[in-house]
Amino acid sequence: MAVQAVYFSDRDGLDMALKHPDTMLFASKAEADARDRILELAEEIQVFLTKKVEGLSEEHAEACAMAIAEERDLFQKALKKPDLLNASPE
Amino acid sequence: MAVQAVYFSDRDGLDMALKHPDTMLFASKAEADARDRILELAEEIQVFLTKKVEGLSEEHAEACAMAIAEERDLFQKALKKPDLLNASPE
Repeated sequence: MAVQAVYFSDRDGLDMALKHPDTMLFASKAEADARDRILELAEEIQVFLTKKVEGLSEEHAEACAMAIAEERDLFQKALKKPDLLNASPE
Repeated sequence: MAVQAVYFSDRDGLDMALKHPDTMLFASKAEADARDRILELAEEIQVFLTKKVEGLSEEHAEACAMAIAEERDLFQKALKKPDLLNASPE
């Protein structure tokens, strides 16, 4: 029988990945890398928002950070052309 | 006597600008334009975060949006290189 690999990001960790295989366990390394890059960006945004916004809960800081990190490309464009951010996809 | 102009963003409005002249009333049109662009971006980010993050208060959505909009250039770079976002300025 062949041996197969599944991939996950260290930032999620194996325990979490096993609990949420559909979003954290990947058949390809590339997908796990993409997940890892999102988590890396989200961590930095969470620290930034926590520093800047008084009273923001850890849960909300994390959710805001993930929402932005998961839409990195869109956000990149919106920083130059803000009305793109909430434009409904045609 | 000469006539002088002070400038403010419509998004702030005259009432608010008069209450917060140091941050909302400007001697040059360019500065008011810069303020207006920040507010334009912040409005879109606030809508985005409110849609994506359940339970986020309007106040926190606005504060997160302004924090990002005021650091547009830094954020632009951080989307490509996340560790820049919280790097302490040398």
